[in-house]
Amino acid sequence: MILLTRKAEFSASHYYWIDAWTEGENQRVFGKCANRNGHGHNYTLEVTVKGEIDPKTGFVVDLKELKDVMEREVVSVYDHRHLNLEVPEFKTVQPTTENIAVAVWKRLEGKIAGARLHRVRVYEMPDLFADYYGER
Amino acid sequence: MILLTRKAEFSASHYYWIDAWTEGENQRVFGKCANRNGHGHNYTLEVTVKGEIDPKTGFVVDLKELKDVMEREVVSVYDHRHLNLEVPEFKTVQPTTENIAVAVWKRLEGKIAGARLHRVRVYEMPDLFADYYGER
Amino acid sequence: MILLTRKAEFSASHYYWIDAWTEGENQRVFGKCANRNGHGHNYTLEVTVKGEIDPKTGFVVDLKELKDVMEREVVSVYDHRHLNLEVPEFKTVQPTTENIAVAVWKRLEGKIAGARLHRVRVYEMPDLFADYYGER
Amino acid sequence: MILLTRKAEFSASHYYWIDAWTEGENQRVFGKCANRNGHGHNYTLEVTVKGEIDPKTGFVVDLKELKDVMEREVVSVYDHRHLNLEVPEFKTVQPTTENIAVAVWKRLEGKIAGARLHRVRVYEMPDLFADYYGER
Amino acid sequence: MILLTRKAEFSASHYYWIDAWTEGENQRVFGKCANRNGHGHNYTLEVTVKGEIDPKTGFVVDLKELKDVMEREVVSVYDHRHLNLEVPEFKTVQPTTENIAVAVWKRLEGKIAGARLHRVRVYEMPDLFADYYGER
Amino acid sequence: MILLTRKAEFSASHYYWIDAWTEGENQRVFGKCANRNGHGHNYTLEVTVKGEIDPKTGFVVDLKELKDVMEREVVSVYDHRHLNLEVPEFKTVQPTTENIAVAVWKRLEGKIAGARLHRVRVYEMPDLFADYYGER
Repeated sequence: MILLTRKAEFSASHYYWIDAWTEGENQRVFGKCANRNGHGHNYTLEVTVKGEIDPKTGFVVDLKELKDVMEREVVSVYDHRHLNLEVPEFKTVQPTTENIAVAVWKRLEGKIAGARLHRVRVYEMPDLFADYYGER
Repeated sequence: MILLTRKAEFSASHYYWIDAWTEGENQRVFGKCANRNGHGHNYTLEVTVKGEIDPKTGFVVDLKELKDVMEREVVSVYDHRHLNLEVPEFKTVQPTTENIAVAVWKRLEGKIAGARLHRVRVYEMPDLFADYYGER
Repeated sequence: MILLTRKAEFSASHYYWIDAWTEGENQRVFGKCANRNGHGHNYTLEVTVKGEIDPKTGFVVDLKELKDVMEREVVSVYDHRHLNLEVPEFKTVQPTTENIAVAVWKRLEGKIAGARLHRVRVYEMPDLFADYYGER
Repeated sequence: MILLTRKAEFSASHYYWIDAWTEGENQRVFGKCANRNGHGHNYTLEVTVKGEIDPKTGFVVDLKELKDVMEREVVSVYDHRHLNLEVPEFKTVQPTTENIAVAVWKRLEGKIAGARLHRVRVYEMPDLFADYYGER
Repeated sequence: MILLTRKAEFSASHYYWIDAWTEGENQRVFGKCANRNGHGHNYTLEVTVKGEIDPKTGFVVDLKELKDVMEREVVSVYDHRHLNLEVPEFKTVQPTTENIAVAVWKRLEGKIAGARLHRVRVYEMPDLFADYYGER
Repeated sequence: MILLTRKAEFSASHYYWIDAWTEGENQRVFGKCANRNGHGHNYTLEVTVKGEIDPKTGFVVDLKELKDVMEREVVSVYDHRHLNLEVPEFKTVQPTTENIAVAVWKRLEGKIAGARLHRVRVYEMPDLFADYYGER
């Protein structure tokens, strides 16, 4: 059993806002993130898969395939996008680092041939990141 | 003569768009950056000042003052903002890395007591940055 | 269940020394770290909390509050200090990376509203760090 | 119980190739890595050990000894070497990141006095790494 | 006048060896790098161009074009290659960091539309790099 | 003409204090750095040399020799030391980043065979560094 992790990056805009709240409540809870013009980040995504090493190839997963799945399912959808306005899953939940990690998990789960998704880590900034291991 | 450099960070949204151009022209020149919902980055700013070392304090510049000037003149204005929509200098020029470097220079020039501004470096991503040394 | 990690930094001095031992014994076990004038490091602290995502805010923990607790309980006490001489917990144990991780845990445990402390990581240098998960 | 991690680096060459396969099959599975002239990487190795903190020294493991073991058992054998041609364990398995992590584990297991090997992490590139926790 | 820098990476093998010297002389001057099986690195390339900002686009250079030129002229030729055996310019000079910087300059000079090549920086390791500014 | 840069690290303690000033004046100018128990940093040193590439070896300077000079003249003197108390040049000037850069220059000048010292860069923290190019 071994774990393999691959990173990718995307740059996106977001803001935090709850329609049912007043401007003041949004400001108090979300601070500068409540600015509805949006602001943005260079997100770093780390996807970890788990499995047995193939005795012939020495791989737990085909690296090119893993890269392609991450690109197709996540990066091409999130990169250079405004998460609140353009990505369906963030119409109903705030695009926080925590929720992005869960959303990336849902996008990748079951799509990686031959290995099991183990962890999704999302960095919003170099000093802030969320880890999601699926429901367990 | 010595140079001292201090870094700061800000997270902001932007897009590239020229009103006089068609959507197609904007797409061709600016690619994914032409998305008018905006996307964002964690920008890193490096400000370099130049001067003589004060023989008593050993400083070329008061570090706290330098930090305060960078915070007041740049970070507080750009951070968690949409550069095109909320920062005056980017109403008329595209908020490219190059133009942000020039704009930061203009904001800081003449504001740093006791030392001369030497260089402004702006990273849009870890693999892309612009350097501006003023007009010369 | 999700994990959220936030980093902070502090710069401090320390040395390793056991009074009951001779100078020679201290030198043999602690090497250059036995210099009682002290030497120092830029420490990086990573605090990981664990909990459920609040369905409204999308947060597992209030980020500003987490930052404030880390600042108040740890950074303001350790930063720009000589750990052996000025921080109470290191009067009786050596301020090794391992012991600092445990001490940070004790300082933070039970202070973070709404989430459970999961891990404290302390880097003494970029190539050396300790992880503590509490008693278990 | 605490975990301590130390990093080291080595620069080495490798390629991926299965003799029983045709050139075309090797190219299809291994892509650019099938070039038998070899190519290379700056590998980063992270070794994590686990144990109780010694109440006197504050150490879970003697840091100098850990460094020496990593140097003697791994770095001196892999650094500036062609892994396929000069390191015995890679005569029979491909020197993938996964297999290197397992091989480092086998080289270190039982050699670190006073602590238990917990994890070996190997980075082939900053955006690709494998983790091995031993057989379990 | 502004400077813009873009990074790229390539992984390659090399060794240092002078045929006219004995094995002993090669070993004495080149140390571990004289191993003719080769060893390798993750090289980082920084290309800096210089010019005026286009008042419309805000660019000193078309970023996509710069990336394409770097990919076509350098990365596709060096990446996953054995520099001594497969790259023509290193048949006659040692593939040292210094010589790679000069070779990259020669490959890029005159190929970047609208801007002037200012500097080529090549990192062999994070702690070792060469800068070349052309003949001057 | 080419530039080659090599990095090294040292961990040291320091404080800022002027005997002729009152405690209050020291606090006002030096803030937390005026704590005479000292605090510390992981300093990073970058030494850049300049010269012609040797047509045979491809080197501007013997890398091992450069490393040895940096180790002997600087790292072995500063590492794990209290700069104010144990390093002669800081008895009379404050060990600021600026003054450390100048002191490193003086220690290295004329000691590097075959190449000319071009720049000394000293990082006190990842976000603060000084550059010295000698008197000119």
